[in-house]
Parts: sequence; C-alpha cells; structure tokens
Amino acid sequence: MDLKAYLQDRRGLVNRALEAYLPQGRGPAFRVVEAMRYSLFAGGKRLRPILCLAGAEAVGGDTGEALPVACALEMIHTYSLIHDDLPAMDDDDLRRGHPTCHRQFDEATAILAGDGLLTEAFRLMADAAPKFEGREALLLEVIQLIAQAAGYQGMVGGQMLDLEAEGRQVTLKELETIHRLKTGALLTAAVRAGGLVGGGSRAEVTALTAFGEKFGLVFQITDDLLDVEGEAAEMGKSPGMDVKKGKATYPALLGVDKAREWARRLMDEAINGLAPLGERAEPLREIGRYLLTRRS
Amino acid sequence: MDLKAYLQDRRGLVNRALEAYLPQGRGPAFRVVEAMRYSLFAGGKRLRPILCLAGAEAVGGDTGEALPVACALEMIHTYSLIHDDLPAMDDDDLRRGHPTCHRQFDEATAILAGDGLLTEAFRLMADAAPKFEGREALLLEVIQLIAQAAGYQGMVGGQMLDLEAEGRQVTLKELETIHRLKTGALLTAAVRAGGLVGGGSRAEVTALTAFGEKFGLVFQITDDLLDVEGEAAEMGKSPGMDVKKGKATYPALLGVDKAREWARRLMDEAINGLAPLGERAEPLREIGRYLLTRRS
Repeated sequence: MDLKAYLQDRRGLVNRALEAYLPQGRGPAFRVVEAMRYSLFAGGKRLRPILCLAGAEAVGGDTGEALPVACALEMIHTYSLIHDDLPAMDDDDLRRGHPTCHRQFDEATAILAGDGLLTEAFRLMADAAPKFEGREALLLEVIQLIAQAAGYQGMVGGQMLDLEAEGRQVTLKELETIHRLKTGALLTAAVRAGGLVGGGSRAEVTALTAFGEKFGLVFQITDDLLDVEGEAAEMGKSPGMDVKKGKATYPALLGVDKAREWARRLMDEAINGLAPLGERAEPLREIGRYLLTRRS
Repeated sequence: MDLKAYLQDRRGLVNRALEAYLPQGRGPAFRVVEAMRYSLFAGGKRLRPILCLAGAEAVGGDTGEALPVACALEMIHTYSLIHDDLPAMDDDDLRRGHPTCHRQFDEATAILAGDGLLTEAFRLMADAAPKFEGREALLLEVIQLIAQAAGYQGMVGGQMLDLEAEGRQVTLKELETIHRLKTGALLTAAVRAGGLVGGGSRAEVTALTAFGEKFGLVFQITDDLLDVEGEAAEMGKSPGMDVKKGKATYPALLGVDKAREWARRLMDEAINGLAPLGERAEPLREIGRYLLTRRS
C-alpha cells in the first residue's frame, strides 16, 4: 500500500471534519475560538485520529462513524500541547515551528483555549449519538475510555509525574510509567476506540489494544531518538531540548543503539499481534513500520 | 419545608458520593489527585449538584440516578474556580477562606488539577451508563448539554469575555451576556440535566430550564450585591474586590436598590414558572427564595 497517499487522504478527512466541527467565528467569544483554531490547525500529523480511523478499518468498520471520535482525540491532544507549553509547565515558545498558543495570544487565553478544546472533545462525541442509534452504550464506553486515558489515571497523571521527575534521576521503570501515561494512554485509547466504534469483537479489540500499547512505547522511544539525532528544520522544534531540560530519555538510559534495537523489537511484536485481523490491519502495520524511520 | 435541613442532607449526599468517586491516594500520580481533592473538598456550597438533584425530584425522578451527573457538575465548577484563580487569570490567593490551589501547591499542579477534574467529570458521567440501561441516549444528551454549557459556547466563552471586558466600560447587555455564559449556563444546565435524568417530559424540562436561566441571573446579581454589602468572615473572601479590579457589576450599573428589586422580580417570575410542576418543585422554589437573602 502507498502509506504516504493513505496518510494524506486520512489527514484531509480529519482536517475537513475538524473545520466543520469548529468553524471560524463560532460562539460568543471570538478570541478563545481563534486560539483553539490556531493550535488545532497548526499543522499536526493527526496521528491519534488516523490511528482511530485505522483501528475502525482493521475490524471492517465505517470510518464515517469513527470520525467524531477521531476528531475528539485530536482536540484532546491539542489541548494537552497548549497546557504543557505554558510557562508554569514546560515553558515552550515554539511548537511545530510556530509560536505556542500563549506566545501568540496570552497565557489566560491559552489556558481557556485548552479548556475549551478538552470540553468540546466530549461534547462532540456525545453529540454523535444519532450516528450510534441502538449502540449508544458503545459510544458511552468509548467516551469513558478516552476520558480515563486523558485524565489523572492517564495523560494528566503522566504530565504530573513528568514534572515531578524533572532534574532528578529516574529508573527505566519510572520512565516507562511516565510515558505509558503521558503519551501511551491516549495513543492506545485511539486504536482501541477505533476498534470499538468499528464494531470489532472483544478479541479484535483486545488485539488492537495490545498493538496500541506497544505502539505508544515505540512512539516515545523514537521521539527521544529524534531529539538526539533529528534536524530542527524537519522537526519544527529544536533538537537536544530533553538534555537541556534535564529530562530522562530512553537513549540516555539505554544508549542510542540499544534504544533503537528495542523499538524495532517492540514494533515486530506489535505487528505480529495484529495477525488475527488479516489484511484490513495493513494500514496500522504500515504506520507502525513508518514510526521506526520517521524524521519528525 | 426545612430548607436548612434539606440543603444539609443533599450536601452530605453529594460529599459522600464525591469522596467515593475520587478517594484519597487514587491513581498513579498522587500529587495531582491531592490537588484535585484539595479544591473539591474546600467547603463549597454544592449549589450546582443540589440544583441538579432538585431538578430530578421536581419531575418525580430518582436522586440516585442523578448523583453521578450532580457530582460531575461540581467537578466542572471546581475546575473552573481553580483555573480562574490562576495568576494569568484573576490572580486570587484566597478561595472560600483557604489558599487557592496554585498557592497551596503550584501553578503547574493547579493547571493539571483543573484539567483532571474536567476530564473526570465526563468520565464519571459516561461511566454511569449501567444506571441508564435502555436510556443511554438520554445520558448522552445530558453529557452533550453539560459540555456545551461548560465549553466555549458557555462558561469558557464567558470567562474569555469577562477577561476582555476588564478595565473598560461595559453595557448592561454585555454584562448580562458575560454572566449568562460564565455562571448562568452551568447553573441552567444543572437544573435541566436533573429534569432530563429524572425522566421529566419535554414540557417539564422546558419549565425547569426557564427557571434555571432566571436563577442564574439572580445568582449573579446577588453575588454582585454581596461583594458590595457582604462581610468578609461570612463570605470567605474579601468584599469590594469587583470595584478594586475594575469589574463591571449590576449594582454599579443599576444602583444597589434597583439591582435588588430586579433580582426579586426575576425570582418571582422564575418561581411562578414552576407552577405546572406542583409540590415536587418546592425545594427549587425554596432555594430560589434563599438566594435573595443569602449572605455568602
């Protein structure tokens, strides 16, 4: 399959849906919607929504039904970037090569834009109820799953642990916990939610979830590797920031070669686990392989 | 009816449920849960959850079914207080007589605690699905309604407008819009959600919604009056802050007497509108009357 064309097509699908869900000038408070849109359309890879759509496809589901959930995942991801970039958090001025939300607007607006995106993500999913007539319980399960992955038991908890670990030595086990929560939980939820919405059997959803968990870990390892080896122009942010900020990384703990080898092994396992899903899971496999060679 | 005993009983119900939903030491990141609990159990009046339960009662519904929704509303309210108090927003050091979340912990933790509470509110509601077997579409409608009231079309939008209006002259109409969004939307959603969850007819839910809208406006007028006339010890915060911060208020725009008269007239209308609901709406009426004489 032509992965590049596939990703481009899916990205277009997601971008058009996001534009329809959150059009310009919507709502009574123009400024906060502008800030929400500024960050939402700042050129993200749309990895989480694409994983969700690919998860639905992998069980023979309809990508149209998965689209609101996919877009909600991107809104949650974007809110987390806005808040993580704030001065009180990671204090970043650049994101994807552009000024971060609080640099482009101001801190108060950035906090509200994040809050607005997080809230809108849940509104959007609940509002998809008519698409799920007779299967409303499934939609509620998906909302619960995504909220759990995004909240204190997942992403929010991971960011807290990450901040607490800054500047001190962490073990490989601690680093895994931080990243399993901070980035892994939502990536896993994306694939799993796709499988659920797509009408997958429990066995299929379990296989997708296992893929998502390994994918999440590989994502973080390769992200760390990029920070060591990447080029600023391709990444849209400065490499070497992790070391500068005293953040623990896999290459720092394991060495570059061992970290890369581990990522490769994990992805092999993740892809093998998709065997029961057959041909329909090919996009997920391709995205997994791509992760190992990505340059941004 | 004995309103004091009623409020105490309902507050107890809500507090026990919140304690069960978010117990100490829950989740992988201890600190963020501590901060969430610190603000959630800082002695709030539990007005929104009580309105939600009273809305369910008013249509003959079961308060047990409304309890997760009621608690979610309190989590959303608490998150909004935490974020509004941040230095980049209203920059408050005291809330309900205690240090605000970012003063007790730190800014990053307070941002995450707010994010965690907002996310948990939606998780909690979606997780109530088994209580709504066969009525899942109704639960989704309630989630959508609350998200809309909390997001950029409601509370978040109102806070944005409020920040933008600081230090400049606003008209009465603008002030109404700000408060309808900032505080009115969630109060209205609380009563309406109660009516929906309680199984009210569309006519009953419409009557409750109209009550909620007027209640929200009276709430803000009396809040402004308290800021002019209240005692710090009873309020748990310093009176006169609105004037100091250059915030527009109803007494400032209308005069104290006219503002009080308007609040009284609005509450009369609100209470009259509950006539079709009969005796079961008595708690809502009593809470409405109480609003006019509240001292905190």
